[in-house]
Amino acid sequence: MKVDLFRKQYRERVVYVNGEWLPNYKATFSIYDRGFTNGYNIYEYTRTFKKKIWQLQEHINRGWQSLKVVRIDPGISKEKIAQLCMECLERNTHLLNEQEDIQIIFEITPGEYGLPHGRYEWELSEGEQSNATIIIKAEPLTPFLIPLAPFYTSGCNVVSTSIIQTPPHSRDPKIKTYSRLNQNLAEKEAELIDPEAFILMLDIHGNLAECTGESIWLVQDGVLKTPTQRNILRGVSRSNILYLAKKLNLNVVECNLQQWDLYNADEAFLTSTPYCMLPIGRYNGVSIGENVPGPITQQLLDTWSEWVGVDIKGQAEYLAKTYG
Amino acid sequence: MKVDLFRKQYRERVVYVNGEWLPNYKATFSIYDRGFTNGYNIYEYTRTFKKKIWQLQEHINRGWQSLKVVRIDPGISKEKIAQLCMECLERNTHLLNEQEDIQIIFEITPGEYGLPHGRYEWELSEGEQSNATIIIKAEPLTPFLIPLAPFYTSGCNVVSTSIIQTPPHSRDPKIKTYSRLNQNLAEKEAELIDPEAFILMLDIHGNLAECTGESIWLVQDGVLKTPTQRNILRGVSRSNILYLAKKLNLNVVECNLQQWDLYNADEAFLTSTPYCMLPIGRYNGVSIGENVPGPITQQLLDTWSEWVGVDIKGQAEYLAKTYG
Amino acid sequence: MKVDLFRKQYRERVVYVNGEWLPNYKATFSIYDRGFTNGYNIYEYTRTFKKKIWQLQEHINRGWQSLKVVRIDPGISKEKIAQLCMECLERNTHLLNEQEDIQIIFEITPGEYGLPHGRYEWELSEGEQSNATIIIKAEPLTPFLIPLAPFYTSGCNVVSTSIIQTPPHSRDPKIKTYSRLNQNLAEKEAELIDPEAFILMLDIHGNLAECTGESIWLVQDGVLKTPTQRNILRGVSRSNILYLAKKLNLNVVECNLQQWDLYNADEAFLTSTPYCMLPIGRYNGVSIGENVPGPITQQLLDTWSEWVGVDIKGQAEYLAKTYG
Amino acid sequence: MKVDLFRKQYRERVVYVNGEWLPNYKATFSIYDRGFTNGYNIYEYTRTFKKKIWQLQEHINRGWQSLKVVRIDPGISKEKIAQLCMECLERNTHLLNEQEDIQIIFEITPGEYGLPHGRYEWELSEGEQSNATIIIKAEPLTPFLIPLAPFYTSGCNVVSTSIIQTPPHSRDPKIKTYSRLNQNLAEKEAELIDPEAFILMLDIHGNLAECTGESIWLVQDGVLKTPTQRNILRGVSRSNILYLAKKLNLNVVECNLQQWDLYNADEAFLTSTPYCMLPIGRYNGVSIGENVPGPITQQLLDTWSEWVGVDIKGQAEYLAKTYG
Amino acid sequence: MKVDLFRKQYRERVVYVNGEWLPNYKATFSIYDRGFTNGYNIYEYTRTFKKKIWQLQEHINRGWQSLKVVRIDPGISKEKIAQLCMECLERNTHLLNEQEDIQIIFEITPGEYGLPHGRYEWELSEGEQSNATIIIKAEPLTPFLIPLAPFYTSGCNVVSTSIIQTPPHSRDPKIKTYSRLNQNLAEKEAELIDPEAFILMLDIHGNLAECTGESIWLVQDGVLKTPTQRNILRGVSRSNILYLAKKLNLNVVECNLQQWDLYNADEAFLTSTPYCMLPIGRYNGVSIGENVPGPITQQLLDTWSEWVGVDIKGQAEYLAKTYG
Amino acid sequence: MKVDLFRKQYRERVVYVNGEWLPNYKATFSIYDRGFTNGYNIYEYTRTFKKKIWQLQEHINRGWQSLKVVRIDPGISKEKIAQLCMECLERNTHLLNEQEDIQIIFEITPGEYGLPHGRYEWELSEGEQSNATIIIKAEPLTPFLIPLAPFYTSGCNVVSTSIIQTPPHSRDPKIKTYSRLNQNLAEKEAELIDPEAFILMLDIHGNLAECTGESIWLVQDGVLKTPTQRNILRGVSRSNILYLAKKLNLNVVECNLQQWDLYNADEAFLTSTPYCMLPIGRYNGVSIGENVPGPITQQLLDTWSEWVGVDIKGQAEYLAKTYG
Repeated sequence: MKVDLFRKQYRERVVYVNGEWLPNYKATFSIYDRGFTNGYNIYEYTRTFKKKIWQLQEHINRGWQSLKVVRIDPGISKEKIAQLCMECLERNTHLLNEQEDIQIIFEITPGEYGLPHGRYEWELSEGEQSNATIIIKAEPLTPFLIPLAPFYTSGCNVVSTSIIQTPPHSRDPKIKTYSRLNQNLAEKEAELIDPEAFILMLDIHGNLAECTGESIWLVQDGVLKTPTQRNILRGVSRSNILYLAKKLNLNVVECNLQQWDLYNADEAFLTSTPYCMLPIGRYNGVSIGENVPGPITQQLLDTWSEWVGVDIKGQAEYLAKTYG
Repeated sequence: MKVDLFRKQYRERVVYVNGEWLPNYKATFSIYDRGFTNGYNIYEYTRTFKKKIWQLQEHINRGWQSLKVVRIDPGISKEKIAQLCMECLERNTHLLNEQEDIQIIFEITPGEYGLPHGRYEWELSEGEQSNATIIIKAEPLTPFLIPLAPFYTSGCNVVSTSIIQTPPHSRDPKIKTYSRLNQNLAEKEAELIDPEAFILMLDIHGNLAECTGESIWLVQDGVLKTPTQRNILRGVSRSNILYLAKKLNLNVVECNLQQWDLYNADEAFLTSTPYCMLPIGRYNGVSIGENVPGPITQQLLDTWSEWVGVDIKGQAEYLAKTYG
Repeated sequence: MKVDLFRKQYRERVVYVNGEWLPNYKATFSIYDRGFTNGYNIYEYTRTFKKKIWQLQEHINRGWQSLKVVRIDPGISKEKIAQLCMECLERNTHLLNEQEDIQIIFEITPGEYGLPHGRYEWELSEGEQSNATIIIKAEPLTPFLIPLAPFYTSGCNVVSTSIIQTPPHSRDPKIKTYSRLNQNLAEKEAELIDPEAFILMLDIHGNLAECTGESIWLVQDGVLKTPTQRNILRGVSRSNILYLAKKLNLNVVECNLQQWDLYNADEAFLTSTPYCMLPIGRYNGVSIGENVPGPITQQLLDTWSEWVGVDIKGQAEYLAKTYG
Repeated sequence: MKVDLFRKQYRERVVYVNGEWLPNYKATFSIYDRGFTNGYNIYEYTRTFKKKIWQLQEHINRGWQSLKVVRIDPGISKEKIAQLCMECLERNTHLLNEQEDIQIIFEITPGEYGLPHGRYEWELSEGEQSNATIIIKAEPLTPFLIPLAPFYTSGCNVVSTSIIQTPPHSRDPKIKTYSRLNQNLAEKEAELIDPEAFILMLDIHGNLAECTGESIWLVQDGVLKTPTQRNILRGVSRSNILYLAKKLNLNVVECNLQQWDLYNADEAFLTSTPYCMLPIGRYNGVSIGENVPGPITQQLLDTWSEWVGVDIKGQAEYLAKTYG
Repeated sequence: MKVDLFRKQYRERVVYVNGEWLPNYKATFSIYDRGFTNGYNIYEYTRTFKKKIWQLQEHINRGWQSLKVVRIDPGISKEKIAQLCMECLERNTHLLNEQEDIQIIFEITPGEYGLPHGRYEWELSEGEQSNATIIIKAEPLTPFLIPLAPFYTSGCNVVSTSIIQTPPHSRDPKIKTYSRLNQNLAEKEAELIDPEAFILMLDIHGNLAECTGESIWLVQDGVLKTPTQRNILRGVSRSNILYLAKKLNLNVVECNLQQWDLYNADEAFLTSTPYCMLPIGRYNGVSIGENVPGPITQQLLDTWSEWVGVDIKGQAEYLAKTYG
Repeated sequence: MKVDLFRKQYRERVVYVNGEWLPNYKATFSIYDRGFTNGYNIYEYTRTFKKKIWQLQEHINRGWQSLKVVRIDPGISKEKIAQLCMECLERNTHLLNEQEDIQIIFEITPGEYGLPHGRYEWELSEGEQSNATIIIKAEPLTPFLIPLAPFYTSGCNVVSTSIIQTPPHSRDPKIKTYSRLNQNLAEKEAELIDPEAFILMLDIHGNLAECTGESIWLVQDGVLKTPTQRNILRGVSRSNILYLAKKLNLNVVECNLQQWDLYNADEAFLTSTPYCMLPIGRYNGVSIGENVPGPITQQLLDTWSEWVGVDIKGQAEYLAKTYG
């Protein structure tokens, strides 16, 4: 990999932290921030296509849904956060080479103050106000996409672990938050099988939930199937598949699925914002489907590429060839 | 409350962040730290008695148990962390007035790097190494203890919510981590009843688990009862009660308890590092026991006070009277 | 409130108990009735519109479904119970003022006898037969509707508790029975937040089930959503919404919903026989939707009013203004 | 059976209902009582030995524990209820023949009024107060004991069903209440196998809980085992076994037990107030143990008989022979 | 029954075991076969209509799905297994009389070898290879169908037990395997009620799953309902009903159903390969529906009969009359 | 490995099948045996020390407990099965070399007949009786022990999978049966990590249950801990540890344990009949304890060796050195 290039991009990024635009290496926040010390935070990842942010509004809306459930007052409007995201893109676009895209991320926490039992007063200077923490970050996509490029053709590897998805009356996975240590535990188990594998979380009843950063989709007898929304993030990419499937007149079912369904799927794929879709090649070492990618997977990916005006697979392959 | 005093203490603290001792207002860390962006962290709170750290070794040992399960390599020995904690105390002791004590906290994360899929290389400069983040903080106890002082006499209020404890095959509560958003959700529900109430988490089967920062104890027919270790933190203060109960020849049982048991307890109390023990006065508005604190609760608190050489209740009341 | 009026109505009601029409104050039944001493009973509530019983047949049919599952032989035909209900209305109609309506209730238990182990014989006199207990009651609606009237405009408050719905292999909530102490426990918790709040029961897996006397409905992106029938009463009003939604070409989905869905609903409302529909204003203190009532809620209520020929909201407001 | 005798006893009983002593056939209460219409009630059964109430205080204490959890204010002291129970015994003792004993029962409900949403005022006459309902009943034991008499020798039959015990975060079985329709459902299934069988409830996880009116006990390798208190009534007879076992130096364990344990028990028995103990002969048609009753069962029964000064088995057999 | 006839058929069957066609009485396999000693096997049952195998391909496909999940390599193609099944039919057809049909069964295990920890080598002779075990069997249908014949008219009896379906993250019932001891346990409980009853398994949450060899179907308000695929075999006969229902324009719903739904169904029936469909007459002793078979059940059975060109009910009745 | 030696032993064994002693290669049983076609079987493994069967009676007793729960009538006494096991040993002892031991196994199924619905009659010849199948087998231990020998020093590797233990109201693991396909599924997942690893099954609530053929033990702070009997086999070797621990005055606790407990154990080991005890070296790649084997593990193994008069570890090492 063109390590020097990525190192440069990585170092020269400009980010927004609580009102200031900072060079990457100065981007710090308080060790007292409750986003850290209470795991009290929400975030969203978007990506660009052709250097324009794709579905920014959808991500902001979902971010605001998370805020509502966790009762963080962001102290900022949806319009303002959109503006900041676009400014963040603008300030970092010059880092990108031909065909490169970038992720724009926002993170919101209640900030430093506001713990219970009346401690608030003395933590602030006189006249000072308590504010939410707002962070806007940019992450170049290329080094993420390069190792994934071959999976568009061969399919990626998915594995299971003993660690389960958190149930919705504890921490609902529909809240997009970093407070999810169980995913780190699952990753540590999965690494023993294959450090490049994607990790499928089962829910507490043995149903397929989602991968640690992906929604999962199966094709059985021409029907597209995906887990219900009970125990997963309501993925923006997931919504995109629902939209594309409707456009393509595909039959779609949201239902409880089990490992049996994945082993016996005709096709299976993952969806996530940075790479849109990846076909699944194997689950726990067992080959999934007869051809990878399967025809419906391919059709969805092609339609998605047309929609965004970028050959999604082609971009990953170009980047891998050029910068890999 | 003597707000100015606390504000001064709060502002003038010195903390340790990754090798440096910093004034409080400069204590920041990278927005890319995985302790934040993956909820990947562990921490421990200790407190002083007579301005000496109490049971530092017990807390370090438990911290190292958490590290082992989450597979963070701290890159530092137990001896070194003990040294840093003691240095942190020393650097902040001058802030404390008569009878005041302080909390010394350590927090460990894997640091900034090490994400999956081979991204590691370009995130570091040539020759640079990836290191864990180590933070040592000091938090003066007085403003925490002041509002609790009356509860030693009247008993505190405990309430239940609809949010449950995370099950152990998702995120085991025996791991002491900030990655616990469900507690924030429970707090938001509990605030509707009483913003000063302590919040009892039930486990997924309707058993009492623990409060959001406390272990719970009941006395029934002279027997001391507390939930099993399945779904709770193995509290250091909880171990202290087991130790004191043995010393006092009290019969102790760890078993599954339900809300019925709390409503009908003869006595009930909470334990936690900063205030050691607090009698429970009411649960969901129902008075618990005939006298608060009950005789066994009182006996345990007295013995604990002797053990540490500080009148625990007396200290809180003195602080409330003097600085409240 | 016009207390004297309600007191008079309350006192002068005529009720049916096992073959006799009695003035209200003489309406008693045996303390040995198994409807009480085994919690062995079923019941149904109907209401009138324009002083005619609405959907009496639907309620009788559902009552007979409950009887079948609990194996009580009512010793009476559906036709006869309908007749008795209509007679009960007739005997009480004179108590109602202009625009007032009334609830007609029937309750069935196996009666006094029939315990296991052959005890039956000596409990009856020679030649006597064991009969089911049949009670028909009338409850004027006005004092119930008055406090609800403002909620048609402002939305009602819904809160959660730690007490869960009974699972279907224990006591299926599809059986309409008074044997439901868990609802009393939930009410006692909810009162601590707001004595006027409606109480949402979660099922054992953290899904929304129903309120203690209401079905719950959400609108998300134009789709009407309601919990599946697994863990709820198959409400007659719930069926009415399904009927009206079909008539209005609304998209309806029965699925597992979680608290996240309620917090983020565009609209939400409750349904129940006495007041038909009430918009939800807040859940656990969080405002639901942008406008209360939302447009689909309003549309359903309007269509329902047309259907029954009574302005449902208008009636409540008139009653509140006139008798409140 | 001497049906005429029992019929006479049954008819001539005197009972207490809300302040009045009534002949049995006049013992009624309001059809509006919330003990019926909300399943909102608690109760206790005691029995006499030699025509004196046995462990009345233990039953009153447990009744008061139930009241506390369900938040019913009985409006009466423990002393007063004890007095009423003893008066009830006195008023009915003349009905008993030689060696006959009787059950004294108390039942408490919140009475008629006090529903939510401010309906209270108009339900009461001016100046009237809302009071709890207090019922004291007497039930001659003989007709209950007669069919059980042979089981002391042959062992009773226990069967399982598909209906489970209600979980403790719904309706905790530690609350002694008639609000337990699930038991009626289980009885209806069990009748298909054997109408005289006792019915074992499993909890939601497949552990043995209790029979519909009995605690269950196993002996394995000389150790007495019984389910934990999580999902059962804390039986007074259960406590008696714990007391007697201690006296006899028997090893006792409270733990989760499964059907396997019952099938393979060396001995098994049930305990309940009216008959104290009954050995189990078969579970789901499979013989339990080699000899019925087993030696530890016999020893416990003998010691219990000595304790109460009545040959428990002998009394049942005498009654069966004399009045059966 | 014409016992001698059946005995003759039973004895003279020819079966295939690992490459050889054997007379029935010589059909044995190794006691070391892992299909026995690890419960490691899959199987499929097909039946003939007019002495031709019906839906052989569907059964082979499902068998291959089971093989994939359990990771047995059959060492044989789908085509070859089809050929063997047809050969098995051919070799046994002469045993059948007029209107008689037969079941053709295949069973696959990994064979004798291949245990973990490198034991493989010494279990085989030099040069020998480890092969899967393939068994093809024939079972004349007549003696199975005779006792079922009256149920087409009267409905069969279905009962519940305390034994639950195995959850899908333990042994998914979608895998068709003999490794299902829980069904034997359920049968032993059910025999206590009625040795001819069909046995309904509930899943771990109290939902209807399936009978020990049958799928279950309900009709409610004209809608055909059946449990979801989460916890059941994906029955070939179940697929046939879905196909026929579509052809007949019936509304079909796959959803969670509970015992309430079965008790209150308008019609209910079972499906299974050997007898296609049987109406349910009673569940736990309670009559189901008003007429048995119900009109939709009858319509489906008629259409199925047309489809296969055999009067399914007529055949059973003819066989019962002729050979019963 | 001395493959030729093992091959010879393997081939020349004599086994008992339903009344006959057969050379190994002729040891077959009917493909219709319900031990295979219904997964309806129980079995026991014993081993010799110094060529005498160790604890044969304990294994027979447990076998008879399994028979009782599954309701198989073995048609043979405990004494007779003991005799057959000893005869099996005698007939195979000549195969063993110096220091070699052997496993004697018995397996019982209901045999071929006895299916429901009256099919029994025609499956038997006139006058023939239906009998249980009894198999007695011998398996030389050497090739099993050789690969395990190094683990006495280095500790074995234990891994987790997504496949859970079957719950006790489905198939209770206390029944020792081959009907356990879920273990094969778990093994297939575990092989992806390490084909030599032992596989830890979690129960449905995330507690440690047992390995696929082993009980698990932890040492924490000097206390020996092991899972409760709820969801595991009541291992004979497990009982031996309880016996030895008592002899050594070790504190032992049976309780619910989670993965945290294993990661943080001071020592951990497995027990099973063939090798008695093995220290655990790693769990999911994480080192367990500071020294392997830990002091308590070593002490138990030493005492066990004394008890049986064989140096257990020494034997394995001798065999590995001599025949490996």
